[in-house]
Amino acid sequence: MLLNTSRIATKRFIRQFCNEVNESKYPRKVFSGIQPTGAVHLGNYLGAIKQWTKLQDDNEDMTLSVVDLHSITLPQNPKTLSKNILEMTSTLLACGIDPDKTILFQQSAVQEHTELCWQLGCISTMARLAHLPQYKEKSENLKDIPLGLFVYPVLQAADILIYKATHVPVGEDQLQHLQLSQDLARMFNNRFGETFPIPHSIISNAGNARLKSLRDPLKKMSKSDADPKSRICLLDSTDEIVNKIKKAVTDFTSEVSYDPENRPGVSNLITIHSILSGKSVEQILNESRGLDTGKYKLSVAEDVSAYIKPIREQIENYMRDPQYIVEVLKGGADRARETASRTASEVRRKLGMTLRVKSKTKVKVANQ
Amino acid sequence: MLLNTSRIATKRFIRQFCNEVNESKYPRKVFSGIQPTGAVHLGNYLGAIKQWTKLQDDNEDMTLSVVDLHSITLPQNPKTLSKNILEMTSTLLACGIDPDKTILFQQSAVQEHTELCWQLGCISTMARLAHLPQYKEKSENLKDIPLGLFVYPVLQAADILIYKATHVPVGEDQLQHLQLSQDLARMFNNRFGETFPIPHSIISNAGNARLKSLRDPLKKMSKSDADPKSRICLLDSTDEIVNKIKKAVTDFTSEVSYDPENRPGVSNLITIHSILSGKSVEQILNESRGLDTGKYKLSVAEDVSAYIKPIREQIENYMRDPQYIVEVLKGGADRARETASRTASEVRRKLGMTLRVKSKTKVKVANQ
Repeated sequence: MLLNTSRIATKRFIRQFCNEVNESKYPRKVFSGIQPTGAVHLGNYLGAIKQWTKLQDDNEDMTLSVVDLHSITLPQNPKTLSKNILEMTSTLLACGIDPDKTILFQQSAVQEHTELCWQLGCISTMARLAHLPQYKEKSENLKDIPLGLFVYPVLQAADILIYKATHVPVGEDQLQHLQLSQDLARMFNNRFGETFPIPHSIISNAGNARLKSLRDPLKKMSKSDADPKSRICLLDSTDEIVNKIKKAVTDFTSEVSYDPENRPGVSNLITIHSILSGKSVEQILNESRGLDTGKYKLSVAEDVSAYIKPIREQIENYMRDPQYIVEVLKGGADRARETASRTASEVRRKLGMTLRVKSKTKVKVANQ
Repeated sequence: MLLNTSRIATKRFIRQFCNEVNESKYPRKVFSGIQPTGAVHLGNYLGAIKQWTKLQDDNEDMTLSVVDLHSITLPQNPKTLSKNILEMTSTLLACGIDPDKTILFQQSAVQEHTELCWQLGCISTMARLAHLPQYKEKSENLKDIPLGLFVYPVLQAADILIYKATHVPVGEDQLQHLQLSQDLARMFNNRFGETFPIPHSIISNAGNARLKSLRDPLKKMSKSDADPKSRICLLDSTDEIVNKIKKAVTDFTSEVSYDPENRPGVSNLITIHSILSGKSVEQILNESRGLDTGKYKLSVAEDVSAYIKPIREQIENYMRDPQYIVEVLKGGADRARETASRTASEVRRKLGMTLRVKSKTKVKVANQ
């Protein structure tokens, strides 16, 4: 009895002193999004997509969106955008995303995202958004800054909250955007009653996320790099991969050794090699004893192409059947909309946009 | 034959030298919106609502929205908002808006508004929005400026363009927002192919729009004035109206004369009197010869209350039957959505968000 009372007291204590909403009521749910812009490279694959397939295969409740509304925050050619949406979806399927397990859909097909974005925009402040580092970075070289670029993180918050996602896999560069989502969830809950869980981050395995450019191993591998030789893409042919790895910038030491600080170029190749082959760095160093970096590059190229080839072929297979991709996305959007429309109704009700009619009132039909 | 050729040449000339899109292809269509915030006063009624009923009765194709999404750009109490939506709709019906003729609906019930707002936001620039005078005015006294206040005119543009409205009744203070809508329509058409007509303004009858505060006849009659005695509302009782007009600020001359420059107080009363009674200013001056302003006020109060009483009673009637109001708004939203969803599909297609599938491709069903 005493034990029981003290348990209740402890529970009460925890509730009282935890500032967060009672999270146990929200089932664990993972949301992530990816922009349909251009070819997916190894950095994206290892930093994000591979993690998603792992989460999916660990039976997480996963919702994954091809976020075309985000991509139009910078100018897009409509034909290219349309092709890129198909290509990104094909890539995700080829990498192992299973539309039976993961809700995979095109963001613009679910209108609740922009609706919640507007509503959250009304509780966001100009000052908070202006201080987000990604906005500063992306806008600093633009003559005319599009509004979309500024509102971008609010749409991200809506993407997450409309599904009441509890967990979001993010790279380190997205942590501050997730913090905004958390703040908006808290602000909404405080003003209008508990509605959203506070979403937690799942940080990517740091090693995977940190692939470097093949042309400048001090920079991250990035799709915005002007030189396509700086990255290996999932749609690269074997010849292209061999060529890019051969031309990867290393240094003047011919020996193969792992020293990210002093030998970033060759260490980056070893990292890629290790992740894709599943061999440890030590094992790779043992196997390449006696090789110079030139010869070692050939060995890396061989393993990388062998890894990428079946993925590339699968992407190409899917790309030959766009109707199937469209059906997958449509099925995903239907499932996403089920949850999204439920949340949207709840939000409208809490904001006072649902009209209260006392049940006693006689029902008349409009327009009679 | 010659005549014919010259006609064709003239047409070609006109097409070539008119910068605007070919507007004849867009049927004439009027859009307007009103925020569901608090009691409607005579300035709103004469400056906007009365004009809408006239447009409707002139058989214009009218779409009229109770814009609740705009009203949340400043904090709202949810219960009050919900009540205000019902009250505003009741007021519009009581003033003569006929839901069989005019499409009357609640903005938040049609998701295409916020969807297009996002898309237009991606072609709006930060600088352009920051220079709009209403934003400067509304934000200057706020510590934390909500993003919604900044994006407000983009949602207004979406409200208009989603219906391909060709005409928008606006007060002078809204002209710059309409110019933004025009610019966004032009920019979208230039980048993505002709989609939207360039909306024209219908300027309110200036006399009607310029009712002055009863407490300070140099200021406009406004719902944001802290003193409720400054305005006459459609829901005011006869006693309240008599009281407000009795206490209206005039001057120390007892004679009744019309001189807006030097005698703004009494001239404002004459203006209100003239508009509501349908008598000319001259007729009123003739009839009130020999009265002092105190006695004249009683005559104004009598005519104003007689005019407002049946409207107030109608509003109260509608407010007693919220279920009917809900049905009216639902019917309006269904009709609004028909047009809005057609435009939204077209916009998505033009932006590249509709996936192109060659018709030859074999159809597979997803998730099999």
